[in-house]
Amino acid sequence: MAHLGENRYGKSRVRVMKVVRHDTHHEMKEWSVRVLLHGDFETCFTEGDNSRILPTDTMKNTVYWLARESNAGTLEEFAIELVQYLLGNNPQVSKATAEVEEKSWKQVFIDGQPHATTYTLTGPELQTTLVTLDRGGEPVVQGGIDGLVILKTTNSAFTGYLKDKLTTLPESTDRIFGTRATIEWDFSPGATNFAATRATALSTLLKVFADHDSLSVQHTLYDMGDAMLKALPDISQVKLTMPNLHCLLVDLSRFGQENPNQIFVPIDEPHGYIEAVITR
Amino acid sequence: MAHLGENRYGKSRVRVMKVVRHDTHHEMKEWSVRVLLHGDFETCFTEGDNSRILPTDTMKNTVYWLARESNAGTLEEFAIELVQYLLGNNPQVSKATAEVEEKSWKQVFIDGQPHATTYTLTGPELQTTLVTLDRGGEPVVQGGIDGLVILKTTNSAFTGYLKDKLTTLPESTDRIFGTRATIEWDFSPGATNFAATRATALSTLLKVFADHDSLSVQHTLYDMGDAMLKALPDISQVKLTMPNLHCLLVDLSRFGQENPNQIFVPIDEPHGYIEAVITR
Amino acid sequence: MAHLGENRYGKSRVRVMKVVRHDTHHEMKEWSVRVLLHGDFETCFTEGDNSRILPTDTMKNTVYWLARESNAGTLEEFAIELVQYLLGNNPQVSKATAEVEEKSWKQVFIDGQPHATTYTLTGPELQTTLVTLDRGGEPVVQGGIDGLVILKTTNSAFTGYLKDKLTTLPESTDRIFGTRATIEWDFSPGATNFAATRATALSTLLKVFADHDSLSVQHTLYDMGDAMLKALPDISQVKLTMPNLHCLLVDLSRFGQENPNQIFVPIDEPHGYIEAVITR
Amino acid sequence: MAHLGENRYGKSRVRVMKVVRHDTHHEMKEWSVRVLLHGDFETCFTEGDNSRILPTDTMKNTVYWLARESNAGTLEEFAIELVQYLLGNNPQVSKATAEVEEKSWKQVFIDGQPHATTYTLTGPELQTTLVTLDRGGEPVVQGGIDGLVILKTTNSAFTGYLKDKLTTLPESTDRIFGTRATIEWDFSPGATNFAATRATALSTLLKVFADHDSLSVQHTLYDMGDAMLKALPDISQVKLTMPNLHCLLVDLSRFGQENPNQIFVPIDEPHGYIEAVITR
Repeated sequence: MAHLGENRYGKSRVRVMKVVRHDTHHEMKEWSVRVLLHGDFETCFTEGDNSRILPTDTMKNTVYWLARESNAGTLEEFAIELVQYLLGNNPQVSKATAEVEEKSWKQVFIDGQPHATTYTLTGPELQTTLVTLDRGGEPVVQGGIDGLVILKTTNSAFTGYLKDKLTTLPESTDRIFGTRATIEWDFSPGATNFAATRATALSTLLKVFADHDSLSVQHTLYDMGDAMLKALPDISQVKLTMPNLHCLLVDLSRFGQENPNQIFVPIDEPHGYIEAVITR
Repeated sequence: MAHLGENRYGKSRVRVMKVVRHDTHHEMKEWSVRVLLHGDFETCFTEGDNSRILPTDTMKNTVYWLARESNAGTLEEFAIELVQYLLGNNPQVSKATAEVEEKSWKQVFIDGQPHATTYTLTGPELQTTLVTLDRGGEPVVQGGIDGLVILKTTNSAFTGYLKDKLTTLPESTDRIFGTRATIEWDFSPGATNFAATRATALSTLLKVFADHDSLSVQHTLYDMGDAMLKALPDISQVKLTMPNLHCLLVDLSRFGQENPNQIFVPIDEPHGYIEAVITR
Repeated sequence: MAHLGENRYGKSRVRVMKVVRHDTHHEMKEWSVRVLLHGDFETCFTEGDNSRILPTDTMKNTVYWLARESNAGTLEEFAIELVQYLLGNNPQVSKATAEVEEKSWKQVFIDGQPHATTYTLTGPELQTTLVTLDRGGEPVVQGGIDGLVILKTTNSAFTGYLKDKLTTLPESTDRIFGTRATIEWDFSPGATNFAATRATALSTLLKVFADHDSLSVQHTLYDMGDAMLKALPDISQVKLTMPNLHCLLVDLSRFGQENPNQIFVPIDEPHGYIEAVITR
Repeated sequence: MAHLGENRYGKSRVRVMKVVRHDTHHEMKEWSVRVLLHGDFETCFTEGDNSRILPTDTMKNTVYWLARESNAGTLEEFAIELVQYLLGNNPQVSKATAEVEEKSWKQVFIDGQPHATTYTLTGPELQTTLVTLDRGGEPVVQGGIDGLVILKTTNSAFTGYLKDKLTTLPESTDRIFGTRATIEWDFSPGATNFAATRATALSTLLKVFADHDSLSVQHTLYDMGDAMLKALPDISQVKLTMPNLHCLLVDLSRFGQENPNQIFVPIDEPHGYIEAVITR
């Protein structure tokens, strides 16, 4: 006989834009929210009993309603309020998670000044948060950046690796190093400086990436995480995922040309994939 | 001081097509492979020491080489051979995983007969496997289908759910039920009937989905999993993920029209999300 | 001083699903509609005068309203009704176009029979139409298929082409020939057999593709178009767009292996692109 | 009997990255190139005669070779050189077009300064060019920007439009105006100031978009084009395509809340679509 194992449900891709209209300028944020609930839902599965089911449509409405009620200044605070509301109003729920992604809208510069009410999308990356709340516990908060595309044209090598009968990769002392990085940092319990942490996290990881004499993706990834831990006392660990954006040196000798590290072919697939948690 | 926590690396989206040329017809399969390794890589992160690093480029070559060597008839068997090769040849590796996705190519029908050497892509879904091998252990094998898009136009209701101040969803006794289902089944140790299991898994879940008097997504999901466990003695559990493909009934009364469950607007976002493990 | 040149506006991606509920089974179709209008809109651009502007939101409502009113059995008929309605009710409009895309839903087979009310998505391709109506004229109707993914594992060669100092491609007498074909056929004025034409168009082009001894993409493309014109007296011409889905033979000699046309790497980019109109 | 009508062929998505290594900093550009040829290719279609066919693989090599040879500082210059080479070396070709897209890489700022060799992707938009060369003619050059995502939170109205029985859109005197704009400008014959034009085009259109008291998308689009023509004497016309990024005001009255233009739901579909050419 079958049994119900781990299960959860919720609403994904609840998009909401909030405009705060100050006299001198507007603040605009665009979020996509995902809510997931764990709890006592067994008879829904086994008998079709919906009496303990909060419809996912209502979760969507909850996001809209809370967007209006809330004064949250950061996506982390909004996500905390959301899981607190859901647990507080639904005794059948034992755990709630909220994920929020924020698009990279920034004010456009007109004649050298940021325009008060006009925005442009400035990158593929998303600012992210994931907040988990167990009944009776405190919110566990993670901040992050998803899909930050960065590339350096020098100070990256890859040599001294294992060779076997299937090795064809030539060693390189000066290669392109590109990645679509995803970074997730775990806040220590009680931390509240979400905005400052986000700003410092980005500036710190960019600086290490740019200046590092990289011997491998792993090598640079570790130093990025190490620097973030040093700069951010309120985080307990950071996870970095850095898939390669490979740029292959083109063999131009077939056409009688030299190629002194100038002409590359970027490829999307296949690609290397490296992830690691750096902890204290 | 920072420490290295959980980490892994490998190669993603290694695409390979294999054509087996029989006298009467060809067999063609297109796979995308992902390989990930765990092991003793700490000094690579902390010191830039690559001496224990198998380059991800070599993993790519390994997939090509093995595709030629192997007589694997299923993606599960290929993934098993791949992780066994990687562990067998790399003492620094403690665990390897291989994921393989197979595209839905099928022979085209010409004049009512399948053509011997011509194919068409027949759906968005992918046939999948995930195999994990710990050093000293046996391969742990999962089969699956990713992104099977199915929809029924009747025999789906959703009533009797919780109402609160934020509820706006009307109850429905006859709604559209669409989903982009992902299914993953865990084989019991030693199971080898991968192809037969895959075929029965699909036919079983489709039959339950089609015939079920659904009281909720959860209700149908559970009975799909229950039927799969009954039909497939070699699997220990199945995980079903069934996000909604919502189709909203259009309010045509604004135009003086009735809408007796005929005209709908399909939407991609937001969407409900339901996942559960059904186990023995 | 600036002048307004060619211009048009309308609504894109109006999605609608229609379910016709017969006693024995349901018919379900999912369409995405695009409407574009040409006409006397100059003062809207130059002065912000909206008095002759039909809002695109109303075009969306028109699609929903017409989906309920119409008995159109084909996407071509629906598109014709749509442009006729828009021109008939908007004297400021001089020309209207409607594009409709239909997703590849088909009834699922359960125990060898098509299920009366359950569907699955069976391919990436879309059935398409484009209808144009000038005021005072007759609808000009085009049918088509967008994104039909087909591949043959033999009977495709490419030899005898131009060589120059930049040539590196080896000739091949037996290569993989894959394409994501888009086909558009123009109906002669007054034609009405839209459904039969669509069915014959597909079976005809598949048969030629499968059986052709291809000397190039162009060679096969032409014979596909030629056969369509022969089989379909009501169409005046056909345009075929056949970008390559390249599958590159892997050089396995580096690993001491032969590769007798067995192991390939499919790539998405770069890719060859061939398009041509075949006319009578 | 069938005849060959309009036809062309070429290579798409030829990606190339060029790094120019100055002492103080690097210049890095990533392009995706598409080449299409028209010419005397009839017997290839009708007889499988490839003797006048330049393989698309060779076109790919030509892009790599030229990337190394060329000193072109702009994508327009590179595209011109490419079509000139192709026509100059292929007498069977009567017309060649080259499209180049450049990704939005910019130097990252570290401690307030642009880093000499490190880049980040700063937006979804692509810088584009399309150059056409007929044998015996001069290159016809178009510059452009594809997919510039911009949004203003005020100074946008839409009132006074046509109402009919299918109208449900309420008038708005203060709505969100978002668009994913594509802009293409035609250079007058002989123009060469491609880089300066590109910079002024962007700053001009952003300024008008930001400051405009918009009465409709058309109204703002026209003034953007008008200002570009005034600021750019070397362009003869500009085409603007401005699909809406709709942000719908949420009805919060159902939850007892006011919504004074604060909470919106962004949607991707359906969406309004407006395009126009502004000419002198």
